[in-house]
Amino acid sequence: MSDRLTIVKVGGKVVEEPQSLATLLDDFSKIAGHKILVHGGGRSATAMANRLGLESTMVDGRRITDQAMLEVVTMVYGGLVNKNIVAQLQARHSQAMGLTGADLDLIRAVKRPVDQIDYGFAGDVTSVNTKLVEELIRNGVVPVIAPLTHDGKGQLLNTNADTMASEMASAFARTFRVQLIYCFEKRGVLADPHNDESVIRVLDRSSFNEYKETGVISEGMIPKLDNGFNALANGVTEVIITNTENIRNGGTGGTRLMLT
Amino acid sequence: MSDRLTIVKVGGKVVEEPQSLATLLDDFSKIAGHKILVHGGGRSATAMANRLGLESTMVDGRRITDQAMLEVVTMVYGGLVNKNIVAQLQARHSQAMGLTGADLDLIRAVKRPVDQIDYGFAGDVTSVNTKLVEELIRNGVVPVIAPLTHDGKGQLLNTNADTMASEMASAFARTFRVQLIYCFEKRGVLADPHNDESVIRVLDRSSFNEYKETGVISEGMIPKLDNGFNALANGVTEVIITNTENIRNGGTGGTRLMLT
Repeated sequence: MSDRLTIVKVGGKVVEEPQSLATLLDDFSKIAGHKILVHGGGRSATAMANRLGLESTMVDGRRITDQAMLEVVTMVYGGLVNKNIVAQLQARHSQAMGLTGADLDLIRAVKRPVDQIDYGFAGDVTSVNTKLVEELIRNGVVPVIAPLTHDGKGQLLNTNADTMASEMASAFARTFRVQLIYCFEKRGVLADPHNDESVIRVLDRSSFNEYKETGVISEGMIPKLDNGFNALANGVTEVIITNTENIRNGGTGGTRLMLT
Repeated sequence: MSDRLTIVKVGGKVVEEPQSLATLLDDFSKIAGHKILVHGGGRSATAMANRLGLESTMVDGRRITDQAMLEVVTMVYGGLVNKNIVAQLQARHSQAMGLTGADLDLIRAVKRPVDQIDYGFAGDVTSVNTKLVEELIRNGVVPVIAPLTHDGKGQLLNTNADTMASEMASAFARTFRVQLIYCFEKRGVLADPHNDESVIRVLDRSSFNEYKETGVISEGMIPKLDNGFNALANGVTEVIITNTENIRNGGTGGTRLMLT
């Protein structure tokens, strides 16, 4: 039986507030076995852009990334957020290594075609090259992935962290039993957005579609769940949506996705 | 006989102007065999600090690094400069991977003790952990090193790139025949600072001391040469000081250091 690999994607406030980040890293560093951390950093990018006099424009939760904004996200995701997480995991005796999609040619993307909206230097993932990273993982290394990719021609691209986590989970599912945990603010996907206790324990595609139609599941949660279902369809063993507190118990208490 | 490893350190304008960087990376990517690129980025850090309203204070060529400046150098060195170099080397079919000293626990340092000057979060290297990076190099990976280290307790530290190159060269000299090339603006160390043709072809410690006494060699060149002589003393095979144009011919035409 193949080895287990846990991929945790964290974003939002939790990676950008020192105390919540410290707690997250405490829990993450205690996960047994092979693991990967994928992080966001959008709030820090927006704050840094503000300090530089740049306005952040979001369309459907995605950042419009012109050249100046690409520099900001490269600095903030690839430098500030990533290297601080790496240093703090090292302090917890995790053999962390920060990577973007450009490093080791891990994740290639194409610049998103301009349709009605020009997202600028935003990347849509085209391939994941797991070979070298798999060797590192098997040597005990813990990759820490920043949401940037490259096009193979020297261009960095801003890329959605949820999608990167899903694409990596799918690619590593060829050689590992992969558990993918999406961490966000709530304990799980809620049947009643106003009731934090109404966690949907198991969500399949047909009930996902119903919840979408009735508006119970909306906005940023839809692409996250689409990414999760894609990962399952690609052979990922388990996909969980939960908050960071549930990392330490392996995601129980959150929402588990099922294909059917 | 052990394999050869070429370590090139580049700083100054060459890494921060797109055209000169492209030329450098063309030449660097053509170096045969195992190699490492160590880069600076001080001008970009100063420019970014300015845009953020932070003043850069240098003492003996070293940056005073308070918390705000540490964030700037982490963003600029670890993110902006490093990831752009990685993406551009990937476009040249070099299997580049960006690293700081925190990644893979590569280079540890201690916060410089406060004597007459408080350099803030500046790191003095204490150890280089080559094991995992050596495996990567032997797998064809080209490490691209940003001038940041960590203290093992979660703190990133701003660290001189010349020193990091020298310390890495010394550490890798245990398992490789290491050539260390320091690139700067001139073709080599000059016997007459006003004559670019007056390159000292071979420089040993006693003539170095003479040149220092007469003021021919001064300021930033002194620590660079000290780093170079240290590397030789630690078993590095060859240390060359030259400009980037000399990379493509293996450093001939520059200044070669000799212990005696």
